[in-house]
Amino acid sequence: MINRQWIFASVPTGSLTEESFAFQEAAVPAAGPGEALIRTRFLSIDPANRAWMSGETYRDQLEPGTVMPGFAIGEVIASNTAECEPGDIVEANLGWQEFSAMPARALRRRDKALPIEHMLGALGMTGLTAYFGMIDIGRPRPGETIVVSAAAGGVGSLAGQIGRIAGCRVVGIAGGPEKVRWLTDHLGFDAAVDYRAADFVEQLRGACPDGVDVYFDNTGGPILEAVLQRANNHARVVACGAIAGYDGCETGREPRVISQTIVVKRIRMEGFIVADLFGRRQPAEAALQNWLASGQLKAPLCIEQGLENAPKALVGMLAGRNRGKALVKVSG
Amino acid sequence: MINRQWIFASVPTGSLTEESFAFQEAAVPAAGPGEALIRTRFLSIDPANRAWMSGETYRDQLEPGTVMPGFAIGEVIASNTAECEPGDIVEANLGWQEFSAMPARALRRRDKALPIEHMLGALGMTGLTAYFGMIDIGRPRPGETIVVSAAAGGVGSLAGQIGRIAGCRVVGIAGGPEKVRWLTDHLGFDAAVDYRAADFVEQLRGACPDGVDVYFDNTGGPILEAVLQRANNHARVVACGAIAGYDGCETGREPRVISQTIVVKRIRMEGFIVADLFGRRQPAEAALQNWLASGQLKAPLCIEQGLENAPKALVGMLAGRNRGKALVKVSG
Repeated sequence: MINRQWIFASVPTGSLTEESFAFQEAAVPAAGPGEALIRTRFLSIDPANRAWMSGETYRDQLEPGTVMPGFAIGEVIASNTAECEPGDIVEANLGWQEFSAMPARALRRRDKALPIEHMLGALGMTGLTAYFGMIDIGRPRPGETIVVSAAAGGVGSLAGQIGRIAGCRVVGIAGGPEKVRWLTDHLGFDAAVDYRAADFVEQLRGACPDGVDVYFDNTGGPILEAVLQRANNHARVVACGAIAGYDGCETGREPRVISQTIVVKRIRMEGFIVADLFGRRQPAEAALQNWLASGQLKAPLCIEQGLENAPKALVGMLAGRNRGKALVKVSG
Repeated sequence: MINRQWIFASVPTGSLTEESFAFQEAAVPAAGPGEALIRTRFLSIDPANRAWMSGETYRDQLEPGTVMPGFAIGEVIASNTAECEPGDIVEANLGWQEFSAMPARALRRRDKALPIEHMLGALGMTGLTAYFGMIDIGRPRPGETIVVSAAAGGVGSLAGQIGRIAGCRVVGIAGGPEKVRWLTDHLGFDAAVDYRAADFVEQLRGACPDGVDVYFDNTGGPILEAVLQRANNHARVVACGAIAGYDGCETGREPRVISQTIVVKRIRMEGFIVADLFGRRQPAEAALQNWLASGQLKAPLCIEQGLENAPKALVGMLAGRNRGKALVKVSG
């Protein structure tokens, strides 16, 4: 049997292209002692995939020549461990390949009763990132105004809806009029603005007549600056991502006024990594499951079919082509 | 009797010069009902004076044509209020002038037993800024590494020493070899580095072998960037000031990597204004008084003689010419 894989072949110098990846066929690995053989079902396509390529983050920089890593959901095919058995659905960093042999400690079994397509999204890391970022870091109070950037993305679309559930006015920022309309019409955002529009700053001001209390920042860069200008005293910035700096904008710079604004408005800007908060995972997952089941939370998906399309899915996401959680369906 | 005053005459377009001020002689005001007539003793010269000129901060932008505002210590000369009597020493925003008529609610009586020259410094707003910033926002734990920028300045020199009292390794950043030597030899910093040196980044790395846990930031700008590169996971940035952006560097820009670093290192960057924390003033002042009296805390002063030299004192401070708390002695 053949194991199709995508190799991370070269560090991109500017915007990522499919050239950075090389397709390869290898033998399907055998599960060693204490290991399970997993068939990949879904790959999670995340901005973090790009950040890993350019330097040390919360993990080492990616080494060219190895299978592209990536969070995934898979099905156990064979098992040499008592921790799981064939047919189990597991979550792990399986990487961009069809089969992997993984030690039991690297796997997390998931409840098969849950919809598998949401296990990487609303019911997985993406949902937990939105939940912990909004609730634990942003600490919204009913009636406050929340702004979310990359609001049509996987994390942003959930974070905004969680802000609404918390009783706040939620304003989304996205690129292009279609996404903006989709945020208000389909996801129930109170307002949405297009950061590509010439009058973006005026749109943002109009959408936030009472200023901004919580900013869920997925972008950094000029959008961060614009929102800080509208921030109220004691505003909180949830530093969740910095897409603006990930994909070949190394020379882009932020105005110095950010430091001064943080001082005079007594702003708290706080970064977080979802894995740090896994200790509080259970109540968060329970809340997300309830909201999804009741329809209070919509979890749009953007699914690319086939492992062969994984590079295309990541390049497309960085170019802003997806709405909702980006996935690649590998099998099943 | 004549009231000599400095008028804020024009908004500086680049670095502040003495040209922005106009000297004027006015009549000494009379204290109205509920007011006291105050003679200014000391003026506090602060980076905030410059920040007020360029835009809205925690107060409105300064209007040219009015007496330059500024925190001060004065003596009550005449009183139409039961709240104070002639001879009392009071703290208030008296501005850059010799006499002011102030309502009682705008005055804070100070304990005459305290050394008057420290009432604006270690025993006043400057000391409280250093204390609250370091203790309440920075939350240092014994054994951690703290970096302080503008470490030879009024707030920085105290903040660094408070960090040492809290049991931490403290590294100061200042401009020029004399200040750097003074920080270690006179103020007891564990190490100090010169941000003007060509090998500043290497010096900083060498001075912080275990990374940086708390950064007390008075500058923003490229120094903030350099320290963030050395920050440990879960580091805290005390956003106290942004001198780098105050004095005519509007076009200076910070690298976008700041947002990304805040995310991946889970950094908390938090701004504060000392006045917000006045509710907890009493224990902080008691600690500062004890440390000063015991000699654990040194409170260097940089006193310019005479109201006529106030503009010179502010311009000099912005150019980095002072060590310790900058004051103008107006009378007494």
